[in-house]
Amino acid sequence: MNVLPKGEKLKMSKILVGIVMGSDSDLPVMRAASDVLEELGIPCEVVISSAHRVPDKTAAYARTAVERGLAVIIAGAGQAAHLAGVIAAHTPLPVIGVPLQSGPLSGVDALYATVQMPSGIPVATVAINGAKNAGILAAQIIGATDSAVRDRVTAFKDKLARQVTEKDALLNELGIDGYLERSRK
Amino acid sequence: MNVLPKGEKLKMSKILVGIVMGSDSDLPVMRAASDVLEELGIPCEVVISSAHRVPDKTAAYARTAVERGLAVIIAGAGQAAHLAGVIAAHTPLPVIGVPLQSGPLSGVDALYATVQMPSGIPVATVAINGAKNAGILAAQIIGATDSAVRDRVTAFKDKLARQVTEKDALLNELGIDGYLERSRK
Amino acid sequence: MNVLPKGEKLKMSKILVGIVMGSDSDLPVMRAASDVLEELGIPCEVVISSAHRVPDKTAAYARTAVERGLAVIIAGAGQAAHLAGVIAAHTPLPVIGVPLQSGPLSGVDALYATVQMPSGIPVATVAINGAKNAGILAAQIIGATDSAVRDRVTAFKDKLARQVTEKDALLNELGIDGYLERSRK
Amino acid sequence: MNVLPKGEKLKMSKILVGIVMGSDSDLPVMRAASDVLEELGIPCEVVISSAHRVPDKTAAYARTAVERGLAVIIAGAGQAAHLAGVIAAHTPLPVIGVPLQSGPLSGVDALYATVQMPSGIPVATVAINGAKNAGILAAQIIGATDSAVRDRVTAFKDKLARQVTEKDALLNELGIDGYLERSRK
Amino acid sequence: MNVLPKGEKLKMSKILVGIVMGSDSDLPVMRAASDVLEELGIPCEVVISSAHRVPDKTAAYARTAVERGLAVIIAGAGQAAHLAGVIAAHTPLPVIGVPLQSGPLSGVDALYATVQMPSGIPVATVAINGAKNAGILAAQIIGATDSAVRDRVTAFKDKLARQVTEKDALLNELGIDGYLERSRK
Amino acid sequence: MNVLPKGEKLKMSKILVGIVMGSDSDLPVMRAASDVLEELGIPCEVVISSAHRVPDKTAAYARTAVERGLAVIIAGAGQAAHLAGVIAAHTPLPVIGVPLQSGPLSGVDALYATVQMPSGIPVATVAINGAKNAGILAAQIIGATDSAVRDRVTAFKDKLARQVTEKDALLNELGIDGYLERSRK
Amino acid sequence: MNVLPKGEKLKMSKILVGIVMGSDSDLPVMRAASDVLEELGIPCEVVISSAHRVPDKTAAYARTAVERGLAVIIAGAGQAAHLAGVIAAHTPLPVIGVPLQSGPLSGVDALYATVQMPSGIPVATVAINGAKNAGILAAQIIGATDSAVRDRVTAFKDKLARQVTEKDALLNELGIDGYLERSRK
Amino acid sequence: MNVLPKGEKLKMSKILVGIVMGSDSDLPVMRAASDVLEELGIPCEVVISSAHRVPDKTAAYARTAVERGLAVIIAGAGQAAHLAGVIAAHTPLPVIGVPLQSGPLSGVDALYATVQMPSGIPVATVAINGAKNAGILAAQIIGATDSAVRDRVTAFKDKLARQVTEKDALLNELGIDGYLERSRK
Repeated sequence: MNVLPKGEKLKMSKILVGIVMGSDSDLPVMRAASDVLEELGIPCEVVISSAHRVPDKTAAYARTAVERGLAVIIAGAGQAAHLAGVIAAHTPLPVIGVPLQSGPLSGVDALYATVQMPSGIPVATVAINGAKNAGILAAQIIGATDSAVRDRVTAFKDKLARQVTEKDALLNELGIDGYLERSRK
Repeated sequence: MNVLPKGEKLKMSKILVGIVMGSDSDLPVMRAASDVLEELGIPCEVVISSAHRVPDKTAAYARTAVERGLAVIIAGAGQAAHLAGVIAAHTPLPVIGVPLQSGPLSGVDALYATVQMPSGIPVATVAINGAKNAGILAAQIIGATDSAVRDRVTAFKDKLARQVTEKDALLNELGIDGYLERSRK
Repeated sequence: MNVLPKGEKLKMSKILVGIVMGSDSDLPVMRAASDVLEELGIPCEVVISSAHRVPDKTAAYARTAVERGLAVIIAGAGQAAHLAGVIAAHTPLPVIGVPLQSGPLSGVDALYATVQMPSGIPVATVAINGAKNAGILAAQIIGATDSAVRDRVTAFKDKLARQVTEKDALLNELGIDGYLERSRK
Repeated sequence: MNVLPKGEKLKMSKILVGIVMGSDSDLPVMRAASDVLEELGIPCEVVISSAHRVPDKTAAYARTAVERGLAVIIAGAGQAAHLAGVIAAHTPLPVIGVPLQSGPLSGVDALYATVQMPSGIPVATVAINGAKNAGILAAQIIGATDSAVRDRVTAFKDKLARQVTEKDALLNELGIDGYLERSRK
Repeated sequence: MNVLPKGEKLKMSKILVGIVMGSDSDLPVMRAASDVLEELGIPCEVVISSAHRVPDKTAAYARTAVERGLAVIIAGAGQAAHLAGVIAAHTPLPVIGVPLQSGPLSGVDALYATVQMPSGIPVATVAINGAKNAGILAAQIIGATDSAVRDRVTAFKDKLARQVTEKDALLNELGIDGYLERSRK
Repeated sequence: MNVLPKGEKLKMSKILVGIVMGSDSDLPVMRAASDVLEELGIPCEVVISSAHRVPDKTAAYARTAVERGLAVIIAGAGQAAHLAGVIAAHTPLPVIGVPLQSGPLSGVDALYATVQMPSGIPVATVAINGAKNAGILAAQIIGATDSAVRDRVTAFKDKLARQVTEKDALLNELGIDGYLERSRK
Repeated sequence: MNVLPKGEKLKMSKILVGIVMGSDSDLPVMRAASDVLEELGIPCEVVISSAHRVPDKTAAYARTAVERGLAVIIAGAGQAAHLAGVIAAHTPLPVIGVPLQSGPLSGVDALYATVQMPSGIPVATVAINGAKNAGILAAQIIGATDSAVRDRVTAFKDKLARQVTEKDALLNELGIDGYLERSRK
Repeated sequence: MNVLPKGEKLKMSKILVGIVMGSDSDLPVMRAASDVLEELGIPCEVVISSAHRVPDKTAAYARTAVERGLAVIIAGAGQAAHLAGVIAAHTPLPVIGVPLQSGPLSGVDALYATVQMPSGIPVATVAINGAKNAGILAAQIIGATDSAVRDRVTAFKDKLARQVTEKDALLNELGIDGYLERSRK
């Protein structure tokens, strides 16, 4: 399914980022990637496709990504997380891997299975459950050569900085007890 | 390449086990699998094929395994070891995964990437660098329904047991210092 | 106790797979193995037997497995999980080990104690708590030389693939919010 | 220092990738990044700058990267590897982190310190010591919107695939012993 | 915000310890540092400042710490916890790092990212979530050359010792069941 | 406090085992040691004493253990668990260490801090939270030279074996669903 | 084979400690146990017996240990180290487990497989490769009820203490450079 | 033994820092602490004392540290590294712990045993084998209230910064090959 940025702020109309996940149980975590891309004005599509259960569909998705106009693919999977690596095997596009926290090993298995790629086939790995950062990184990659997108990334980071400053000011005003009480509400 | 048991003791002439490894640098470890299968009288073939560098060749190998008469596939890979899982995605045959010790994580990454497969697509994982055990396990799998092969597995295990007993007797005879001196020769 | 596939679809009447667990507290996880074997039409038996508390019973179970007609044994245990290894020591049959998540180490102890078997005595290890995959692997092992069982494994994997495709189609239709709302119901 | 691709195959004359490392002891590993970028025809610069010893120089490098025309920054560091994260804090460009294997923890510390970035500031992490893959990933990022570079990435991956196929053919021809003997020469 | 010890027992009126945390979500854990400093009669200030979101503010805070009269800085952060290291890069004062337990790795990532500092820039690391001990350590550092503060540390430790002795006496009096019942109230 | 076996079955009247824990929060786990010793008819005492908060009391306890007639000391502690090692430093008696699961590292820290003792000063370490096994091990140690106690250990193990056998029989009778339903009651 | 203390200092003539190892490759490490027992005047026997290769021999050894007069059994094994647990399953005697450093996981697998024993069957685990401490612990266990042995343990520990004191004095005399130079000789 | 800064640059004549290690085998690593303190003009003493082999000597050393004028104690130990914690239990002074890399766990055991101290008794932990940083941290602690020492720390850090800048300039001049060739000389 496609996730399109709202209203006028979008200049691009082409899907630029593909977000693939191995199971629909990954959707609550992985949606943070499409949410932040929507906020940054970058159209994306969200796909469920497993490296192990539908390997041919997954390979075909990766192989046709360039001709369909994608610039980046984000892949999220848990446990023996092969999804990002399998996609990277089939495309020259940059692939971002999101190791997901599932099962008894808390995502360490997914981290190792995603990041420790052999020479020749890199996967740009973010933190365990770091779907939001995967979305930001996809925007940064597009922004590497597109200054309009890069400016939106800069604005996004400025907003994060302001939030930290405002919280520090609020703590100064309310004190620890007051701040924590307000947070609990 | 094919590895055929020597001489008359072989009743089977068909390749039953495929041994795949991701890189030729895995050959010194993985050859223990074909060596033990040769000893157990089970013909096998040894193939270099990478899940990431030649994904289509790897998928094709797995997809045609049944029609070519294979009964078991052994796959050895290091780091983010996707090879066994990718093969298992393309065949109903049992797939044995050998996590290889390579790189800074000493094979823990390969172990997790091999054993922590999602529901539906198992990989029968052996110890890190356990290529010999992968060969024995392949023989046990064939022996599950072939009593002649099973008898050879039993004889193989009896030989291992005798070796332990003989070493204990030798230790009794030589004492610790004598035994260690003899080992050093 | 025996678990027999329902109704007419079963051609075999002999127990082919033994499922052993170290404690009755493992039953809620381990029953996934007998459930999937029942679905795949393969008769199995479920046994509680501990490597440490009733070692002789466990050894006898393994030693008599061939003569009772078993083809595969599945063993599930937690912590210092010796059960699969002890059984493998007493039989030439393939033994599948299921490391169970119990206690403070989340099953990493059980994984290492199950998979890192010494040369000569392999255990076919699946994921931590991977009882369902252990059942599927047992079917694949029987299917290595029995094409009827192998066809059932293939059909089972096709069903998994269809489920992924259907979920992706549903996500396309409902969108992320709609899909997640429906999942919560 | 600048690393420029040799001869005529280069269309670009601008430095596009900055490669930063925390210590000159990282140079033997990190040079694989500039080597592969040179091979892929992408000009880059190599800089020694520490997040902890010269924090202001490091921050200034990152802050001026956009205006100097860089598209991607690669940062390699060991132990409590803050370099990639500190650079990412000061630029909207995509930052690739290379955790380096140094010290008693074999790079697990560097991996965690590089990949587990908080929400808002991603680092595209590659494998421990994965400097070559960092270079390839930088090319893929530039190739996300530059089809000439992407074609060079595709050609590079095709070359890797051919190497695997040729090795497998050679193994077929020489057999295991022959192949290993030849490798030792 | 400033946390000043209550009433007359305070001889010092200058803020001596700065407590910095990367996010307001760290406040419930980190307040244990200011609480114990208040109890030990040492004025401190509590600041929210992120190494990645407001890097310049964080650097400025550290760079001006000496001139503002601080003697020690405590920094608490989770995941790829760079905060303490970044602060240590900008000040000659001793910096205490508190790795925080957040995210799937339970603080091991934060521990490694805090303690494994390269040669030249130490961070005095306490236990994961050890904010209270960070406060005590700050007092010990001031007490290294201030015997009045050191005496308060000694008195604090004597109180801890008395509590252990009293609990042991109570256990003697009530027995295990009685003691546990009383604890539950 | 002393825990004495009930009624007539006790021939010994002397406290033989000291059970020390670092904090009263360890009591709910550690009481399993005194419970099983009571069941095995071996008088013990339960003491709260910290290696860090009351080091002199702890050292004195260990130093006087022989003259007070103790034969074994059990020590349970969490995190940087020094208690067992400190006690072992002050007595020639065997010391059993129980690493406790507390804090973010789930007891791995306590396990390493307890078991990895330097040459010369062993600690007999049991599983994380293995207080019951510590009690049984204490009985086994006394039983090493006291056949009456050893017979009680044998009887205890026979009871465990019977329980396994009875559960297996019950599972046979009730089936999986029936057994699990009964367990939930 | 038997290891008997030299000369007159021995009052006991009965073998009291059995030292079992899974492979003769463990002998160079495990001999530290018999060496220290010889020094402490306690007769022992050294046996090679594998839990997996000769399970019946191993079980018989454990089952007959009491009647042959053993007081303690030491078992050393690597990787999935089941040896100590299997022996403990067959005897009421205290069993000391020595996890051995072998293979890619450096003995962590052996540690977990040895120490994380289920409730009812403890193994007294020492450090990885801690064979010398296993011997000392065996002496401490015998010394729990035998004051002559306990006195020898005390004398042994006094010797260790004197060595530390002498080294410190030597360092004082020679200085760091002098001390290190002397050590190199 | 005492280590006094050379020549005139020393204003202090009192030993301010005690450096304790558990074994003389730690001296080659731990001497980096006294070397850097000598360079920073701070007199220190170097002592061999084990928490387990000479516990009373160690406790006495810590208990008398204040009266002997020490301001900071550095303790280095490996494996189950109790030394820093035991010293911290006996003094109100700040204690710096150096986990040492020794044995099969590469110092992770020592790190956990040093840093995970319970509430009330902090140890200021530095990196595994981080003896040099321990010395710098000790100087920073003294410099917290002594501006002359603090200025020397600042000068030391400036020197480190200059070295980084000079290396970067040299790399610029020589190129990668030239730089690496020069390093090898």
